[in-house]
Amino acid sequence: MKYAVIGVGGVGGYFGGRLANVGRDVCFLMHSDYEYVCQNGLRVDSCRGNFLINPIKAYKTPEDLPVCDVVLVALKTVNNALLPKLLSHVAGPDTLVVLIQNGIGMEDDLQAAMPGLQIAAATAFICSAKTGPGHISHMDYGTLTIANYSCRDKGIIEALVRDLTNSGVETFQAEYKLARWRKAVWNMPFNGMTVALDASTAQLLSNPSTRALIYDQMLEVINAANACGVKLDASFADKMMANTDKMTPYKPSMKLDYDNGRPMEIEYLYTRPLAIAATAGYPMPRLQMLEAQLRFLSSK
Amino acid sequence: MKYAVIGVGGVGGYFGGRLANVGRDVCFLMHSDYEYVCQNGLRVDSCRGNFLINPIKAYKTPEDLPVCDVVLVALKTVNNALLPKLLSHVAGPDTLVVLIQNGIGMEDDLQAAMPGLQIAAATAFICSAKTGPGHISHMDYGTLTIANYSCRDKGIIEALVRDLTNSGVETFQAEYKLARWRKAVWNMPFNGMTVALDASTAQLLSNPSTRALIYDQMLEVINAANACGVKLDASFADKMMANTDKMTPYKPSMKLDYDNGRPMEIEYLYTRPLAIAATAGYPMPRLQMLEAQLRFLSSK
Repeated sequence: MKYAVIGVGGVGGYFGGRLANVGRDVCFLMHSDYEYVCQNGLRVDSCRGNFLINPIKAYKTPEDLPVCDVVLVALKTVNNALLPKLLSHVAGPDTLVVLIQNGIGMEDDLQAAMPGLQIAAATAFICSAKTGPGHISHMDYGTLTIANYSCRDKGIIEALVRDLTNSGVETFQAEYKLARWRKAVWNMPFNGMTVALDASTAQLLSNPSTRALIYDQMLEVINAANACGVKLDASFADKMMANTDKMTPYKPSMKLDYDNGRPMEIEYLYTRPLAIAATAGYPMPRLQMLEAQLRFLSSK
Repeated sequence: MKYAVIGVGGVGGYFGGRLANVGRDVCFLMHSDYEYVCQNGLRVDSCRGNFLINPIKAYKTPEDLPVCDVVLVALKTVNNALLPKLLSHVAGPDTLVVLIQNGIGMEDDLQAAMPGLQIAAATAFICSAKTGPGHISHMDYGTLTIANYSCRDKGIIEALVRDLTNSGVETFQAEYKLARWRKAVWNMPFNGMTVALDASTAQLLSNPSTRALIYDQMLEVINAANACGVKLDASFADKMMANTDKMTPYKPSMKLDYDNGRPMEIEYLYTRPLAIAATAGYPMPRLQMLEAQLRFLSSK
């Protein structure tokens, strides 16, 4: 199995690094850090033990990449328009592209742009960030859920799950739509609300008004998921609330993006699921309002 | 006709000042500005011509006020719990108390606290503010709409409208519930949204996302009003949008309160109308969300 990682940040650097750390053949497409990692390797400071990938198979342009069996894409979705170009050399007819991204609708768009491509979705539950050149800091959690979207060869997904598990990553499999919508139950309320109110998850949950609002927003996502044919019980909202209560105060990725002046992933985290839900007959008024507020804030 | 004004700020100072300026007998209940206005009078710098009320009939405590025919209450609603005490001397059995305030439900609460009291509602459409001790600055507009709530003596409302008109205030009459809900169509979206997004009315309307959201919020209020038996056509939202487009960029009173660290009128502007609408079978999800955001911001 030959791997490539596109998007070597907190997520791609960690999971790709894990695979390389147990000897898997992993090609990393680097951008600004190319020279640095060629000299110094990729350093992962992890709460489960630090490691260093040195030497590293680093590549500077997508045209340099060899064809791989599995491509892990951990780009921010704001860059997804670049995917056909980024994948043009690395993806052969039997390659599996795994989108480790937040949101709903990314696989549909990539498939439309690259019809024959084998695609899987992945949701990461992890606290990690790139904290310097060639330097990933992994603070907490670190599980991955893989969901088949259009992969004809189930064997390759099994091999990927096996390799990840052997590299120390707790890996699950789930049905595609369920995986994406289940993740949205947490993502849609918390990503936008922490931005709109400049607050941590803990602050939002400790105020009774926003706590009730977050819960109502979770129910909106669950109802929308069910309208789209995804069986998700309302009790999942209670579970997400309880889990978040137990987490240390946390800034979701959109809050980090906004605070650091980077573009927010509004399109796939809000606009697309809102459109899909509305088409299925269940508009999500509170999350529609949140999307409008985020659009406003991103234009300020 | 003997008048009293309780709450001598931008609204009470302007309308009370107008009445005094044409020779009506007006008693002003002053607080911190008492000594100042006794010496210097009440100055109103108005876009329709400046005037000075000097000497002024100023009173320092509610117990000093004589019984009056009409009491204009222009306090912020956050202080409405004080009303029974403030009115205890000035309101006799035939007195009409006019609440020139923003929100829905104030008359119900005051009537419950003072069962025999004659009450009218008033909505002001005015840009004015207290800009210094005994100093009101009136920038634009200046109309008043009076609506009977529990006044048995219609003659006193007619006399009030006549006096206001003769003092140069364009005055209208409207049905009670219609007056309060119609005003809420503008107030509920704009007051909260300018606070939540730290924006002017013009900024909210120039962004297509928030423009659509404001419009949807107006429709929520209109639908809630209809659920409460108030006939308000959806086209009223279009009229409010067009009117606001024509206004100079404007900070609603709640935005001014928030920016100046004063308590916001969340209770009567949001919580009460939301409860009334929910009871009538029409919850307003977007405005409910806005209320939660305002509760959060006010607790920060």
